Amino acid sequence: MNNPNIRPAQKGDIPAIIGVALSSGLFAPDEAPLVQDMLDEYFANAPAGHHWLVAQDAEVVGAAYVAPEAMADGVLNLYFIAVSRPVHRRGIGGALLDEVEQIAGVADARLLLIETSSASEQAAARTFYEGRGYEMQGRIVDYYQPGDDKIIFARRLADG
Amino acid sequence: MNNPNIRPAQKGDIPAIIGVALSSGLFAPDEAPLVQDMLDEYFANAPAGHHWLVAQDAEVVGAAYVAPEAMADGVLNLYFIAVSRPVHRRGIGGALLDEVEQIAGVADARLLLIETSSASEQAAARTFYEGRGYEMQGRIVDYYQPGDDKIIFARRLADG
Repeated sequence: MNNPNIRPAQKGDIPAIIGVALSSGLFAPDEAPLVQDMLDEYFANAPAGHHWLVAQDAEVVGAAYVAPEAMADGVLNLYFIAVSRPVHRRGIGGALLDEVEQIAGVADARLLLIETSSASEQAAARTFYEGRGYEMQGRIVDYYQPGDDKIIFARRLADG
Repeated sequence: MNNPNIRPAQKGDIPAIIGVALSSGLFAPDEAPLVQDMLDEYFANAPAGHHWLVAQDAEVVGAAYVAPEAMADGVLNLYFIAVSRPVHRRGIGGALLDEVEQIAGVADARLLLIETSSASEQAAARTFYEGRGYEMQGRIVDYYQPGDDKIIFARRLADG
């Protein structure tokens, strides 16, 4: 596969993004409505500083969503990043994160946060974030459910 | 002072609650609009599971706001708690937190979170939370601004 094209998501991408979420192995079927809500809100309101991106090759194979934190200036949160499982380990997540970090740089953000889970399904994702310079700065025990903690990664941005 | 009356906030309490926020020493004047927004949203939409409370003696001297986390079942976040500075150290914050924990129990919540800052103005608040059994589970460095970290406290609820 050549490098996928990373572009802003369009409303017509919504079904494909939900497909990516489910195919990624990172989201359970009952989480699809949460993803749908995030997408609907984004396309209804186009809030300033929010960005849904997709990675497209022949079809949409990855997506990411970054938005500012409400209570802090210069802090962005990567609320969503996922790549379809059949194309894992081909650099698509890295290309999406490159673009997100580029957006954060243009926005003069100081910090980029990623919140994920301690579940085994997320182990590869956590290793990926650590390899990209994200540091675990929080672990909220039993947050998602008993035995499933929230892990908060943060990376200080060079120019923020 | 006798024990203050803890009751649900009414729309007419909005100016008094903002006064409490500013008088508490926990909120800077430029944060008043954030508090106003939280209150406006609450009274406009009455979202399920959200509670603004006030502590009233002769007048409103304290307030608290607790609401569910969007991404997790059974987790509440105490987004706001403040007591007017002239009546600090009289148990009003404790009475508000008692009521919040009561609400959390009725809601069968597993976890109650409090997010605060590492700033020196919050030192007494952090000591208060620790004394109430809240454990620091996250510290997001430079979150609010360089040198001002976000501190995340969590308490597991007995019956959650």
